[in-house]
Order: sequence, then C-alpha cells, then structure tokens
Amino acid sequence: MLLPEKAFIRRIRLHAGLAAGIIGIGDDCASVRIPAGHEALITTDFSLEGVHFVRKLQPAAPIGHRCLLRGLSDIAAMGGIPLAAFLSLALPGRLPQAWTDEFLRGLLDLARAFKVTLAGGDTAKSPGKILADIVVLGSVPKGKAILRSGAKPGDRIYVTGSLGGAATTLRMLLKGQKRNIPSEDLDKYSYPTPRLEVGRILREKSLASAMIDISDGPSTDLSHLCQESGVGAEINADAVPRARHGKLRREVDIHSALDGGEDYELLFTASGSKRVPTLIANVPVTEIGRIVRGRGMVLASHNKSQKLIPKGWEHFRK
Amino acid sequence: MLLPEKAFIRRIRLHAGLAAGIIGIGDDCASVRIPAGHEALITTDFSLEGVHFVRKLQPAAPIGHRCLLRGLSDIAAMGGIPLAAFLSLALPGRLPQAWTDEFLRGLLDLARAFKVTLAGGDTAKSPGKILADIVVLGSVPKGKAILRSGAKPGDRIYVTGSLGGAATTLRMLLKGQKRNIPSEDLDKYSYPTPRLEVGRILREKSLASAMIDISDGPSTDLSHLCQESGVGAEINADAVPRARHGKLRREVDIHSALDGGEDYELLFTASGSKRVPTLIANVPVTEIGRIVRGRGMVLASHNKSQKLIPKGWEHFRK
Repeated sequence: MLLPEKAFIRRIRLHAGLAAGIIGIGDDCASVRIPAGHEALITTDFSLEGVHFVRKLQPAAPIGHRCLLRGLSDIAAMGGIPLAAFLSLALPGRLPQAWTDEFLRGLLDLARAFKVTLAGGDTAKSPGKILADIVVLGSVPKGKAILRSGAKPGDRIYVTGSLGGAATTLRMLLKGQKRNIPSEDLDKYSYPTPRLEVGRILREKSLASAMIDISDGPSTDLSHLCQESGVGAEINADAVPRARHGKLRREVDIHSALDGGEDYELLFTASGSKRVPTLIANVPVTEIGRIVRGRGMVLASHNKSQKLIPKGWEHFRK
Repeated sequence: MLLPEKAFIRRIRLHAGLAAGIIGIGDDCASVRIPAGHEALITTDFSLEGVHFVRKLQPAAPIGHRCLLRGLSDIAAMGGIPLAAFLSLALPGRLPQAWTDEFLRGLLDLARAFKVTLAGGDTAKSPGKILADIVVLGSVPKGKAILRSGAKPGDRIYVTGSLGGAATTLRMLLKGQKRNIPSEDLDKYSYPTPRLEVGRILREKSLASAMIDISDGPSTDLSHLCQESGVGAEINADAVPRARHGKLRREVDIHSALDGGEDYELLFTASGSKRVPTLIANVPVTEIGRIVRGRGMVLASHNKSQKLIPKGWEHFRK
C-alpha cells in the first residue's frame, strides 16, 4: 500500500494554510504568483536518512526544521525572498506516525516563521530509509540575485555569525556524548536560523558582489565561490569568528571553524569601497580575508601562511 | 565519498544548455524569468527504484525519460508551458557510470524536445537504491490554469489517446514476457509523449472546465477530479477508447483501460455547450461520460450499470 496520500494531503492542508496567490496541494501543479518585476528562484535539497541525518541522534522536529532550512538558506544566499516550499517525502512502512507528525511540525513551524507556504510535493512508500527532498521557490527583483560568480580581486570576504559550532556539536553527538553538550549548543545545532534578513539587506543595499551559504563548510563553499568567479582567496586565520562551545565556552579550533559544515551562515564578498556594517539584522558580520588574482586559497596567520584546502563536509559519511 | 558533484554538474552543463533568462546549475539557486502576465507552476515527482521503476525491466534511458515526463505531464494537465527542470539524484556507489549517462540522455532528450532547461538539482550518494526527484517549473497566464476543481454537473468527460496500453505492456514485462511484446508497444510504453500541446490548446480556447493527467489510472484520477470538484461521474463503458495491444492488435479489456496507470494521457471535463474537437494537436479526444451531482462514480454499459471503484495504480507494489 501507498502512504495514505489523502490523509497526508489533508494534514498538510490543515497545518499549512495557503497564502494569497498560491493554489496548492491537491492539483497537478501548485501555482504561485511571482511579484511584479521579480524573477523566480528555485532550489532543491535532499535530506536522506543515513546521509544527511541519523534518526537515532536527533528527534524528528529538528530534522524537519533542517530539511526546509537547507532550501531557505539557498534563497538567502541569493538575496531572495522565499514564497513557497514543496516536500517530496518517501517513508518506510514501519515508521511510527509520531515521527512523521513531529518531522512535519518542525518543518511547518519554520515555514510559518518565515511566511513560506508548503504548497505541494509528492509522497511515496520508501523501499528503504526515509527520503525527503525539499524545493523552495522564491523571488528576487530582476537581475538583482547575488551570484557566486561576482567576486573580483581586491574584494573583502565576510561571514555572518560564528563558525564551527554545528560541526563540533555533531561530532559529540556522533561520539555518544550528548549529555555533555550544553542545551544552548544543542538548541543552536537543532534549530539554526536561515539568514534571509541579512541576505535581503545585502541585496537591497547592493553591498555584496558574490555570496554563497555555508552548508558544506567555509573552506569548501569559498572554493566554490572562487571557482565560479575565477579568482583566488586569502583568509586571515586570526580574524575567523570561531564559535564558542561546551561548558567552558571555549572557541572551537580553526579547522573546525573552516572545514565544519551545517552552520548555515552566509559567506559573501564586497568591494573595498563599500562600508559593510559589523552587525546586519542583529547578526554579527566579520571580515575574514580578501579575494586575490589566480586560483588558489591561502590561510595566513601572524607568523605563517599555508595553502587552504577545501575539506568538503560529507555529512555522515566516513 | 560524495558523488563527484563537479563532474556531474559539468556533464549537465555540457548537455543541457541554458535558455535565455535562466541562470542555472552552479549557484545556490537557479533563477528563472516568468513571462509577463504569467504565474509560476511547480510540480515535484519521485522516481524511486523498486517503487516507480525496476532496473532489470528497462534500460536507463526510458527511466530518465519517464522521470521528466511525470513532471511535464503535470504541467500539461494545468494547460501550462514548461520552462525549467531540476533533478535531485541519489545514486548507490556501485552503479555503473553508463547507467547514469543513459538515464541523463533519456531525460535530456525529452527536455530538448520540449525546450525545457535542466537548470539545477541536488546530488547525493544513496544509502540504498536509486532515488530521483524531478521538479518542473512552468508558467501559465494569470488565473488561467485549468484546475481539478472546476467540473460541474452536466459537463462532459473526455480523455486523450487510448487507455490501458502502458499497464498491459508493464504486466507482460513483470511476467518476463518481454520477447512477446511487439516493438511498437514497447516503444510506446518506454517513451510516452507528454500532452503539453493538447493542454495548451484546451486552455487557450477555454474548452476545459477541469483537467488531470492520467498517471495513476483513469478511475483513480477521475475520483481525484470529482473529489476536488465536489461532483460525481458516470462513465459509458462502451465509449472508453481502449488501447490496441500485442501482435493481434486486440483492444485491452475495460479494467486495464480504466484502472491501469502510466498512460500519461489527459482527462478533462467541458461544458455541454462547448464543441470539443475529436482531434487536438493530432491526438484523438474521446467523450467517455458526464459529470453528475453527488459523490459516486458509475460505470454504465448498454445493459447494466455498476459502481466504479478507483483502483489506484500502485506502481511495483503488491
């Protein structure tokens, strides 16, 4: 038997509430009005059990939150405004209904907080583990999306928030040290905020020349930005805002900060002629380096300089 | 290790070719310009190994074709115009590269035929079987989408093409009788045409009051349309266009025609006052019944009348 699709649709209809201009779940397609003068932004992200999350490590609500967060963070990284989300969800037959309910609650709470309508999707019975794929549709004024490809030599490199906290919490969870994680760190890991407001302000004020979200780890995401822009980068190790973590609120080490993924902060570049505030929408913004000619990335500190290698975040893979 | 994502992106960039107004793969989001006066249409559809396809039964190219077809058919059923597609693809580590290449070839050939740009997606290593999720973004003039909810008592019910051919071919494939299937039937099963042209003409001429695509089987899809419209239906069994199949080109039985899925034809309703052509965009269109008050569905033939039960297509489930 299929998932009871009608019941699922009814539950989502009940919870989601469709915004004006959106015709949603229960038709062949959802139809969404894009604001006048805007173009559509679309992003899709898998959340696969055993790849992007491990069911035993976390309750279902933060997994649902993160599923949608991944899409919202991509919209933020373009300076966009999210409009609607679409969830494709395949569930194994033996999964308790409570898991699905909690997963949806986590996802829909985040959707409501950012006025995003869950407007459609697909359901199936999974032949194996839990499979989710989230699509977020947003919009941005025509020609104003902040791309990865706009960085120029001389531009400064900035990040929002602090780095490495999520990876450090996750490492402790994977080691079975959950009880040693302060609730402050666990909450921050479980419910990160998409930086939509920061992205929107950077776009409105034409501050950023290029932007990407930090989901795979800053070193990897910066390398993507450099590749798309055809430039290199020099990071000042001493300037990197490292997350404070654990009972003693110690700063995480530089490698956790630069290679750890899942922080969902933004990394952007801005021309040296722009004055970038140190706080945007209440989020700290820190200059961590600059864009240079060439192709490589360098990590410099007060006494030495070394090659910065993108160490891709690989979720739960070994 | 992850799928070699860069290689995948490069391959898609090479094959896909981005249309004007679309910024695609390689950024946080794709950005797509929706034509002036149009609204966006979005649909998402899983293609899961073991649920929607069985790898041993078919080469990879028709599986890729069908993956995109599922989305295009949903756009057709709204009277829409497809613009861009987004593919999320999770592949098991041991899958031969040739399978992926052929899957993409089937998908991209169909995309090109209907001027749809593959503009983004996500990739992951699958913890189990092959998982694909296709998103199609299209557009339709504002307020002109043909919904499932517009059918009224007295409206006539129509279908495009002939019904039950796909289910009959699939049944033979599942029984290991591939060599008994004429190549004509196998080709038709492997590469169905999305009825985009028919959908567009029905919308432009304001002929259809409601529409749905036949992917789950006519009895099930008609029941969805009736439910969304709050009406019942009477089907004339003798009028149903049954597919001709096999070496003797015999018509399939009425149950295969009404319950078999995957035909990807359109089912629509039109007011009795409209003159619906018997051929639209070279596709036969047949009147098969009418919409009635109430909630049930009836199957009537010259000598008897019985309840029509939606017998949902359940892909490869028992």
